[in-house]
Amino acid sequence: MTAADPPIPPAVILADAQMGENIGAVARAMANFGLTDLRLARPRDGWPNARAYAVCSGATWILDAARVFDRVEDALSGLTRVYATAARDHAMAKPVLTPEAAMARIVEDGRAGATAGIVFGSERAGLTNDDVSLLDGIVTIPGDPRFMSMNLAQSSVVIFYEWRRLAVAAPSETLDLGKTGLADKAELLGFFEHLERELDDAGFLFPPAKRDSMIRAIRAPLHRAQLSEQDVRTFRGIVTALTKRPHAARKQQAELIAALKAAGKGDG
Amino acid sequence: MTAADPPIPPAVILADAQMGENIGAVARAMANFGLTDLRLARPRDGWPNARAYAVCSGATWILDAARVFDRVEDALSGLTRVYATAARDHAMAKPVLTPEAAMARIVEDGRAGATAGIVFGSERAGLTNDDVSLLDGIVTIPGDPRFMSMNLAQSSVVIFYEWRRLAVAAPSETLDLGKTGLADKAELLGFFEHLERELDDAGFLFPPAKRDSMIRAIRAPLHRAQLSEQDVRTFRGIVTALTKRPHAARKQQAELIAALKAAGKGDG
Repeated sequence: MTAADPPIPPAVILADAQMGENIGAVARAMANFGLTDLRLARPRDGWPNARAYAVCSGATWILDAARVFDRVEDALSGLTRVYATAARDHAMAKPVLTPEAAMARIVEDGRAGATAGIVFGSERAGLTNDDVSLLDGIVTIPGDPRFMSMNLAQSSVVIFYEWRRLAVAAPSETLDLGKTGLADKAELLGFFEHLERELDDAGFLFPPAKRDSMIRAIRAPLHRAQLSEQDVRTFRGIVTALTKRPHAARKQQAELIAALKAAGKGDG
Repeated sequence: MTAADPPIPPAVILADAQMGENIGAVARAMANFGLTDLRLARPRDGWPNARAYAVCSGATWILDAARVFDRVEDALSGLTRVYATAARDHAMAKPVLTPEAAMARIVEDGRAGATAGIVFGSERAGLTNDDVSLLDGIVTIPGDPRFMSMNLAQSSVVIFYEWRRLAVAAPSETLDLGKTGLADKAELLGFFEHLERELDDAGFLFPPAKRDSMIRAIRAPLHRAQLSEQDVRTFRGIVTALTKRPHAARKQQAELIAALKAAGKGDG
């Protein structure tokens, strides 16, 4: 494992999962965020389940590799730290963590070469108190306390998203400029000076005492726009078109008149 | 608005939403995370939509208040910053942000009293290039590049979760000890000293040169366990039971023998 590899992802344990659709949705969410190890404890409708395959959106390799266990405790073998997601109060003295706090520890374990686990209870009853007693803590997704109604598919997406957010660094902002790159400072400055020359000619940068602050006010948003080389060409073209408009219009007018005359001659 | 209030949540704009089920799922996710302003641009099957109500899990107030618009640009009125979620490459020079980076700015706007917006495209075609040109950036959920297949319901949950994570501070870890509180240091120390006295008697803390480091090694995990008052009582009971075992067992044995004798007499 190199430094660039993501840490070992957690295993996902579904306890008493009832609907095949939910198992398929969890597999799809696992695949989206790079998790692979699915363990089913007492799946209600047996295994394999055609409904799970029907809704997994092609994440079949997760379902193919899923292992089935009779008891939740058997499904936890080989795992170090194990958290369960639950909204219900189990009245047990277990730490309750945000997804962020729990996944931060699971990522830490994964970087150290250990496999952690995340247990999801059944859709209807959640986890039993016996199941909860096996665990290191409860993960609860913070939401509006007046309305928390998340199904297995939704809560698994949030948890796996949070794992990947912490596990794999992603650039927070990128700008895809297509074929052309960001304009270099010389191109940008050339454009600014072109624009300001024309604004001086037009008497816009007036009075002189305010000229510098007006120029800063014009340059600041154009800097923020992160103009590409192509953008700079486009904007220089716009400045040229606007300043040359009287000449160009006169030239076009002259051409049209000439064309009209020629047409008149041809007709006459 | 006090400092404790959450910032103004973003408006949610669904462009060309096709299935009522998806509109209902988005409403449910909005309610989970405290968003309220739903705007529908060109909903394919008209509005209101019975399927949306059927799957919203009771978040009907969001659907009741939803507004319908003919064009995406009309639905953006009153909004300052607007991002769209998309996985597809629109080949337009728009900043591409993580959910975290985009929601951080939307939270900032909301704290300043401004309403931002999040646009979701249609399930099949995503957003048109005209729609994208109206926006401040694209939000892309980072995932496994080999398999990114998220539907509207899933991606909206992630985006709204991320908004609330940044908007509303939640304690990263809490411990619900039920009726009894965390043991205070005196109770904890009383238990440690009780245990260590018995271990001294049992010859466990030996040799004396290692006694201090052994005690530290015993106390450390018990500290980490964050014992409640009830836990301390339970553990003191365990120490007492284990150390008094020979006496208790002898006492029970004597009682049993006496009972047996008494029974023998009654029978004889």
